[in-house]
Amino acid sequence: MSKLKLNITMSIDGFVAGPGQSVEQPLGAGGEDLHDWLIPLKAFRESHGSEGGEVNANTPFAEDILAGAGATIMGRNMFGGGPGPWSEKPWQGYWGDNPPYHHPVFVLTSHPRAPLELQGGTTFYFVTDGIESALEQARAAAGDQDVSLGGGASVAQQYLAAGLLDELVVSIVPLVLRDGARLFENLGDAKLAQVESVEGPGVTHIRYVRA
Amino acid sequence: MSKLKLNITMSIDGFVAGPGQSVEQPLGAGGEDLHDWLIPLKAFRESHGSEGGEVNANTPFAEDILAGAGATIMGRNMFGGGPGPWSEKPWQGYWGDNPPYHHPVFVLTSHPRAPLELQGGTTFYFVTDGIESALEQARAAAGDQDVSLGGGASVAQQYLAAGLLDELVVSIVPLVLRDGARLFENLGDAKLAQVESVEGPGVTHIRYVRA
Repeated sequence: MSKLKLNITMSIDGFVAGPGQSVEQPLGAGGEDLHDWLIPLKAFRESHGSEGGEVNANTPFAEDILAGAGATIMGRNMFGGGPGPWSEKPWQGYWGDNPPYHHPVFVLTSHPRAPLELQGGTTFYFVTDGIESALEQARAAAGDQDVSLGGGASVAQQYLAAGLLDELVVSIVPLVLRDGARLFENLGDAKLAQVESVEGPGVTHIRYVRA
Repeated sequence: MSKLKLNITMSIDGFVAGPGQSVEQPLGAGGEDLHDWLIPLKAFRESHGSEGGEVNANTPFAEDILAGAGATIMGRNMFGGGPGPWSEKPWQGYWGDNPPYHHPVFVLTSHPRAPLELQGGTTFYFVTDGIESALEQARAAAGDQDVSLGGGASVAQQYLAAGLLDELVVSIVPLVLRDGARLFENLGDAKLAQVESVEGPGVTHIRYVRA
């Protein structure tokens, strides 16, 4: 069965987003700096239609984030569009007409909505019956590929606490965010084991599995 | 001038001690598990008078903790003996007659006390005029060796926030402590840069310097 995995970048003080997350600032104040290791990479630039860029020890982790899954699960906050029922001209996500997913994306929400098919193979499905149902649907869609947990922190915590997350890569950057959304909270009995760690320029990637 | 450096083990959720620290449980509930990577090592066993033990990628970090400094600074909580003035038969520290430091140790406290000379080269000096004075005295005592910041979390935060810490090795273990003392809080404008990271069995060591 395909694995459910989460790749997430965390500040050394434990935040995966800064304070004051909003539509204008999805990663909160200072949160964009979390991805300073990712943005200059050739793999990232290519996935966003640009040329050039660096190839270094971070590249395999970027490739895993960008193209390592057959389906994605994300929370309503990460998809965006504000809380509550969907508006008449509903929010299409943060990513424009051709989102970088190129596979089915399952959005956890309390509010039903018809699937949203965009360009390049990305269709957003809105799941209202919980994290296990979303995982089941995502696994079916992913076939023999893995399922990526897109975030944010709250959804990641729910899958961790439920023991449903198979693999977790935490990319730890030297940034001090001081406030914001923590990944490692509300974890229930979750136990982790370290599999490997890799030093890259400006970041350390640590791979964990469920212990 | 000798460097001020801190080697500290942190759970993946950011704690350097569990909840409920006390004389009986100096690292709080579950906190002793932080050092599961350190205890089986030959370097650790030798420093505590035992034979045998493992040699692996963690060994250089253990040696740095155990013998890499000419003086140590620690907080009153780490030395122990409870808050307030020293009692008539004062607390001698957690480490018995022959503490594993074997060099001068400067204890930050609000309460004056005569130096305490124990066996094996360890003398505790009680510093009441602040972190800069303690650092000055420790540097003088260390000669051309480095000064080690022993902890706990609060003292480490004060040196980090004051920009006085030259080097920080955070040994991150897969433990989830859920509550306790955080290292990375109250840091003022502290900025860090990653120098290296090293994978060891059950732990990842990341070395930072002041940015």
